[in-house]
Amino acid sequence: MVEDYVPTGIPGVDKILVGKGIPRGNTILVSGGPGSGKTTFAIQFLYTGATQHDEAGVYVTLDEDPGDIKKNMLKYGWDLKKLEEEKKLVFINISPVRVAPSESAGLIQIGMKEFRLIKLLEAIRQGVKEVNAKRVIVDPLTIFTLQYPDEIERIYAMRDLMRDLKKTGCTNLLISELRGTGIEREHQFEEYLAQGVILLRTFLKSSRLVRVFQVTKMRGLAIDNQPRPYEISANGIEVYPGATVYK
Amino acid sequence: MVEDYVPTGIPGVDKILVGKGIPRGNTILVSGGPGSGKTTFAIQFLYTGATQHDEAGVYVTLDEDPGDIKKNMLKYGWDLKKLEEEKKLVFINISPVRVAPSESAGLIQIGMKEFRLIKLLEAIRQGVKEVNAKRVIVDPLTIFTLQYPDEIERIYAMRDLMRDLKKTGCTNLLISELRGTGIEREHQFEEYLAQGVILLRTFLKSSRLVRVFQVTKMRGLAIDNQPRPYEISANGIEVYPGATVYK
Amino acid sequence: MVEDYVPTGIPGVDKILVGKGIPRGNTILVSGGPGSGKTTFAIQFLYTGATQHDEAGVYVTLDEDPGDIKKNMLKYGWDLKKLEEEKKLVFINISPVRVAPSESAGLIQIGMKEFRLIKLLEAIRQGVKEVNAKRVIVDPLTIFTLQYPDEIERIYAMRDLMRDLKKTGCTNLLISELRGTGIEREHQFEEYLAQGVILLRTFLKSSRLVRVFQVTKMRGLAIDNQPRPYEISANGIEVYPGATVYK
Amino acid sequence: MVEDYVPTGIPGVDKILVGKGIPRGNTILVSGGPGSGKTTFAIQFLYTGATQHDEAGVYVTLDEDPGDIKKNMLKYGWDLKKLEEEKKLVFINISPVRVAPSESAGLIQIGMKEFRLIKLLEAIRQGVKEVNAKRVIVDPLTIFTLQYPDEIERIYAMRDLMRDLKKTGCTNLLISELRGTGIEREHQFEEYLAQGVILLRTFLKSSRLVRVFQVTKMRGLAIDNQPRPYEISANGIEVYPGATVYK
Amino acid sequence: MVEDYVPTGIPGVDKILVGKGIPRGNTILVSGGPGSGKTTFAIQFLYTGATQHDEAGVYVTLDEDPGDIKKNMLKYGWDLKKLEEEKKLVFINISPVRVAPSESAGLIQIGMKEFRLIKLLEAIRQGVKEVNAKRVIVDPLTIFTLQYPDEIERIYAMRDLMRDLKKTGCTNLLISELRGTGIEREHQFEEYLAQGVILLRTFLKSSRLVRVFQVTKMRGLAIDNQPRPYEISANGIEVYPGATVYK
Amino acid sequence: MVEDYVPTGIPGVDKILVGKGIPRGNTILVSGGPGSGKTTFAIQFLYTGATQHDEAGVYVTLDEDPGDIKKNMLKYGWDLKKLEEEKKLVFINISPVRVAPSESAGLIQIGMKEFRLIKLLEAIRQGVKEVNAKRVIVDPLTIFTLQYPDEIERIYAMRDLMRDLKKTGCTNLLISELRGTGIEREHQFEEYLAQGVILLRTFLKSSRLVRVFQVTKMRGLAIDNQPRPYEISANGIEVYPGATVYK
Repeated sequence: MVEDYVPTGIPGVDKILVGKGIPRGNTILVSGGPGSGKTTFAIQFLYTGATQHDEAGVYVTLDEDPGDIKKNMLKYGWDLKKLEEEKKLVFINISPVRVAPSESAGLIQIGMKEFRLIKLLEAIRQGVKEVNAKRVIVDPLTIFTLQYPDEIERIYAMRDLMRDLKKTGCTNLLISELRGTGIEREHQFEEYLAQGVILLRTFLKSSRLVRVFQVTKMRGLAIDNQPRPYEISANGIEVYPGATVYK
Repeated sequence: MVEDYVPTGIPGVDKILVGKGIPRGNTILVSGGPGSGKTTFAIQFLYTGATQHDEAGVYVTLDEDPGDIKKNMLKYGWDLKKLEEEKKLVFINISPVRVAPSESAGLIQIGMKEFRLIKLLEAIRQGVKEVNAKRVIVDPLTIFTLQYPDEIERIYAMRDLMRDLKKTGCTNLLISELRGTGIEREHQFEEYLAQGVILLRTFLKSSRLVRVFQVTKMRGLAIDNQPRPYEISANGIEVYPGATVYK
Repeated sequence: MVEDYVPTGIPGVDKILVGKGIPRGNTILVSGGPGSGKTTFAIQFLYTGATQHDEAGVYVTLDEDPGDIKKNMLKYGWDLKKLEEEKKLVFINISPVRVAPSESAGLIQIGMKEFRLIKLLEAIRQGVKEVNAKRVIVDPLTIFTLQYPDEIERIYAMRDLMRDLKKTGCTNLLISELRGTGIEREHQFEEYLAQGVILLRTFLKSSRLVRVFQVTKMRGLAIDNQPRPYEISANGIEVYPGATVYK
Repeated sequence: MVEDYVPTGIPGVDKILVGKGIPRGNTILVSGGPGSGKTTFAIQFLYTGATQHDEAGVYVTLDEDPGDIKKNMLKYGWDLKKLEEEKKLVFINISPVRVAPSESAGLIQIGMKEFRLIKLLEAIRQGVKEVNAKRVIVDPLTIFTLQYPDEIERIYAMRDLMRDLKKTGCTNLLISELRGTGIEREHQFEEYLAQGVILLRTFLKSSRLVRVFQVTKMRGLAIDNQPRPYEISANGIEVYPGATVYK
Repeated sequence: MVEDYVPTGIPGVDKILVGKGIPRGNTILVSGGPGSGKTTFAIQFLYTGATQHDEAGVYVTLDEDPGDIKKNMLKYGWDLKKLEEEKKLVFINISPVRVAPSESAGLIQIGMKEFRLIKLLEAIRQGVKEVNAKRVIVDPLTIFTLQYPDEIERIYAMRDLMRDLKKTGCTNLLISELRGTGIEREHQFEEYLAQGVILLRTFLKSSRLVRVFQVTKMRGLAIDNQPRPYEISANGIEVYPGATVYK
Repeated sequence: MVEDYVPTGIPGVDKILVGKGIPRGNTILVSGGPGSGKTTFAIQFLYTGATQHDEAGVYVTLDEDPGDIKKNMLKYGWDLKKLEEEKKLVFINISPVRVAPSESAGLIQIGMKEFRLIKLLEAIRQGVKEVNAKRVIVDPLTIFTLQYPDEIERIYAMRDLMRDLKKTGCTNLLISELRGTGIEREHQFEEYLAQGVILLRTFLKSSRLVRVFQVTKMRGLAIDNQPRPYEISANGIEVYPGATVYK
C-alpha cells in the first residue's frame, strides 16, 4: 500500500509536513484567533488544489457570506468566481439566516431551528458530488459545536461529522476559533478527535508580536511540532520552517 | 472592482490601516476598558466623516444620555449640535428608561421589556435614512449582548445585527467593554463575527501606564497588528504608529 | 457654556484632576479594599465642601451606623455633628435593620424586605432637599448591587440610580468594595456606567506595601491616569501627585 | 470624649496598634490558615485581659471542644480552668452536635437544625452577663457564615451579629479561616463589615517559610499596615514590629 | 497532667515533631498527590506501632483491596499478614463493591447505597475493639467527603467522624488526595477540622523534582513547619529534617 | 512469592521502571495531549508483547476506527493485521456509532444509548478469552468517564472497571486525554485509582518544545519520577532515561 499525501501548496507548510502534505482522507483542525488568517489558510488550500493539482474543493461556511469571502480573497489575486464557473469550487452557506427565498438563490440555506448535523452532512455530500471535490472546508466549526451544550453529545456529533467526512474520501480542514491567548491553554476535545491539529497564534518575541504557526498533531507523519513564524502578505500565508519563535 | 476605504481621520490610525482606512461597509469592533476613550474614538470617527468627507453619521447609544456626550465632546472643540442641525449627525437613544413621554422628545425611547433586536434595527435604519448616513456607531454593544444569556442565541442575534448593518452600506463601529486587564485574555465571540477588531488598552511600560491602541483584525487589509501607544489630548485621540510598546 | 468643577479639597487630588476637581453633576465610583480609607475619602469630600465651599452634603449609608462614622472622623478633627446642626450635612441610614421604632429616631430606616431602588432614591431626594445639598455619597454601593442577582437588571438599576442622582444636580461619590488584589483585575460594570473611577489600592514597592490612588476615568477631563501614592494621616487622606509607584 | 483602647497584651501587637490596642467596643476579624495560631491568638487576648486588666472574657466555639482548647493552652502555661473558676472566663460551645443531654453539662448545646443567629446571639449575651465580660471571641466564624448560602442574607446575618456584639460593649475577635494562600487574594465580605482586620499568614522569604502578621484595617487608628513576622513559642504568639517580610 | 505522644517511627518525622511524635488521641490529615507514598506512610505508622511500641492498628480502606496493600508493602519487608495473625493489625474494607457474599469473607463489605457515616463509625469501633487498637487509618478520606455534596453537611459529617475517632482514644491518620500542584493552593476545610496536617508533595528544585514533606499544623506542638525533602526507598519513607527545599 | 513484571519493550521505559517493567496485573493510566503519541505508546506495548514475549493483546477503542490505527502503525513497520491473523491481537471497537449491521462485521458495535460499563466489561472479557490475552488497552478512557457526570458515580464506575480488569490477570493501559498544558495542573481522580501513572507532555526547554515522558506513580516499584525527554521516530517511541528536561 502506497501512502498518498495532499500538498497544501501554502509556502513552508508542506516542508513542515515532512515534504509531503496532509495524509489523504484525513480531517485536520485549524484553530486560530480573530485576524489570524484562518479563512485565508483554508481558501489558499482550496485554491492551490484547484489550480495546481486539479482537485476541486467545497467550502462550507456557517457564519460568513460567501460573497464577502470571494471579495476579500481578490486582494491575494485569487479569483474564486472563476473557479466556481469552472466547477472547481463550490460554496455552501448553511448559516442559519432569516432570508426571503429569493435571496438564497444558488445557496443551500436552512432556518435556525432546522440546523442539524444531518443537514450539514447532506450539504457536504451534495457539494462534493457536484464538483467531484477532493478537499473540503467547514468554517467555523464553533457554530456547529455550540449546538450541543452537553459535552458527550458534542463529542458524538463531532465524531459523526468526522466519520462522514472520511467516507467522502476528501481531505478536510475544520476551522475553529481559539478562545484563550498565551502559551498555556486547555486542549479542546476536537484536538483529540481530529487526525491533525494546526494552530495559528500570536506570541510576543523581542518586543514584537509574531504570528506563529504550529502543527501539534498529524496522524501518520513524524512532523516538526515546533512553533514557526508566519506572515500574511499580498500572496497569502507564508510559513518560515527554519526560523525559531522562542528566544 | 475598485476597493473603497473610509478614512477614520483619527491621527495615526489610517497609517496603521495601510494608509487607507476601514474597508467601506465593514463592521468593526472597538473594545476598551473604562476611561479608555471609546466614545471619543467613535465620535471622532463621525465628526471627521461629517466635517471632512461629507459623510453623515448615526450614533446609537444604549446607555448614555446624548446630551452628556454632546457636552463632553465640546472639550475637543467638536460642536455636535451644529452637526445635528446641519443633518450631518443624528443621535438615537434606545437605552431602556423609565421616562415621561415629554422627556423623550426627539429621541426614540423604548421600555425595558420591549428591548429587542428588531427595534434596534428599525432605529438604525430610520437614523441612516434620516441623514443619509454613511457611518454608524452602536455604543455599547454590551447592553445588547447581555439580553441573550444563551450563547448560541447571542451569536445569532449578533450575526443578524451585523447583517442588517451591512445592508445599510454604512461603515460601522460597535463599541464594546473589555472586562479583563493585562496582555493575556480570552477572545470574545464578537471578535470572530466582526470584520475588524480595534483594542484600546493600558499596559505598564518602564514604570508608567501607557495607553495602547491595537488593530488585531481587519478583513481585506494587511494591517500592522503591533500594539502602538496613543494619547487623549485636547484634540481627541492620537495614535503613534512608529512607537513601540513592549520594551 | 462655562464648565463647572467641584474641588475635592483632598490634598493632591485636585492637582491630578488637572487643577480643577470633579466636573459638577457627575457621579464618580470610588473603589477600594478594606481599610483603604474609602469612608475617610468620602467624608473628607463632604467636609471640605461644607466648610470651605459652602456646599452642603448628604451621606447615605447602607451598612454602617452614622454614629460610628461621626465618632471615627473626630480623629481627623472633623466635627460632623456640628455640620449637621448647621444644616450643612445630613446622614441617611437606609441599611436594612431589625430595630424598634424608637431606636431609629432621626433616621430613615427600612426593613430588609422593603429595600428597593425607589426608596433609596426617595431618601436621597429628601436629604438633598433638606439641606439644599450639592454633594452626595452612597456607601457602600455593594449592598445595593447585591440586591440584583441578574446582571442585566443590576445594570438597569444602577443606570436608574445614576440618572436620578444626575437630576439632583449634585456631584456624587459611589463607594464600592474591591474584591481582587494585585494589578491585574476584572473591570466591574459600574466602572463603565460611572462618569469617573477612582481606585484606592495597595501595591508592593521595594519591600513595602504602598497605598496607591489612581483615577482611571473622568469624563470631560484629560486626567493623569498614573497610580500615585497616598497616605492616611491625622489630617485625613493626602495623595502625592508627583511620586511614582512602579519602580 | 476620650477614646478608650483595649490592649491585646500580645507582644508586638499593641505597638503595631500605635501603642494603644484595639478601640474599645470594636469587632475585629482575625483570619488565618490552618496551623497559623488563630485560637492561640484569641485565647492570649482573653488570658491577658483576665489576668492583667481584670477584664473577663467569653469564648464562643462553633466547632471545637472547649476541653481540647483548655488542654492545648496549658503548653503556654495558661490555666484556663482556673480562670473559669474565678469567673473571669466562660466557654460557650454552640457547635451543632449529637450528644446525650448528660454530656453537655455546663455547655449550651444546640442541635444541627436549630443553629440560628438568634441562638448564637442569646448565648453570647448570656455569657457576657454571666462573667460581666469585656472581651468576646467567636471561633470560627466560617461555620456561622456557611449557614447562609445566599450572599445577601449572609451579609445581613453578619451585620446583625456585629450589631449585637456592639450592644454588649465588649471588644470582639471573630476568628475566620483563610482559603487561598499567597500574597494575591480575594477580599472577603467580612473584611468590609468588621471594624478591623488582622491576617495570620505564611510567606516564603529567602528560602524559608515565615509566619506573617498584618493589620490591614483598624477603624479609628492610623495603624502600621505592613506585614510583620511572628512566631509561636512556649509563651504564645509574639510579633516583631520592626522586622520586614518582603526582601 | 503529663502529655502523651505517639512516635511515628518514620525516620526524620518524629524529629520534626519536636522529638516526640503525634499528641496521643489526635486526628491528623495526611494529604498528598498520586504516587506520593500516602499509603506507605500510613502503613509505616501502623507497622512501627505494632512491632516497636506494641500498639495494634486498624486500617480502614475505602477504595483499595487490602490484599493489594499487603502485597505492595512486602517490598519494604513489612509482613502485614503476620501482624494480622498476631492480632496487631486489622484491615477493614468498606469500599462500596458489588461482590458475591463469598468473596467478602473476613471483610466488612457494604453496598454502594448503604455507605453512610454510621456504618463507617461502627466498622472503626469494631476494628478497634477487635485488636485493642491504638492507631487508626482511614484511606482515602476523599471517598467519604464526596458523599456530601453540600458543604455544610460535609463539615458536620467530618466533625462527627473526628469526634467518634476521638472517643476511641486512638491516634488517627486520615489520608486525603491533593488535587492542585504547585506551592500556591487553596486550603481544604479538612485542614481546619483536623488537629494536624501533613503534606506530601513534589517541588522543582535546581532542575530536579524533589519529594517534599511538610507539617503545616500540629495542635499542641511547636513544630517545624518548613518543607523538608523525603524519599521512598526500600525501607519505606525517610524524611530529611535538616535539609532545605527552597533555594 | 516472586514478583512478576511485564517489560514494555519501549526503548528507555523499562530502565525507568527500575529495569523491570510494569508489575504484572496492574492497571496503568497513560495520559497525554493531542499528538503526544498515546496510541503509538499503547500499540508499541502490545506489539512488543506479541512479537517478543509471546503475550497476546486486546485493544479496546472507544472512538477510533481500528482500520485507521492499523494503517497508521504501518509507518513504524508494525503489521497489526498479521498479528490479528496469528491470534496475537484483537481489536474491539465499542465506540457508539450509527452503522448498518453489515458495516460492523467482525467488530462488536453498540449503540449510543447502550453504552454501559457492563458491555465494556463483557467485551474486554470476551477479547481476553479469544486470544488468551495478557495485555489490554482501553483508548480513550475519556469517552468512558464522560458517561458519568456525577463525580461519585464516575469514581465507582472507574473502580469497577479496574476491579474487572484485575480479575483478567492482564496488565492494562488506560489511555487518557490531558486537558491542561504547562507544569502546574490539577490531579485527576483516575490518577489516584490507577496503580501507575505515565504522562506524555510537551515542555519548553532552551527555545525548543521538548516531548517529556514521566512516571509519577507505579505501585510496588521505586521508580525514577523525574521527567525525561522522548521522541517519536520511525521506530516508534523512544525515551531517554539519562537526559534532563529542566534547565
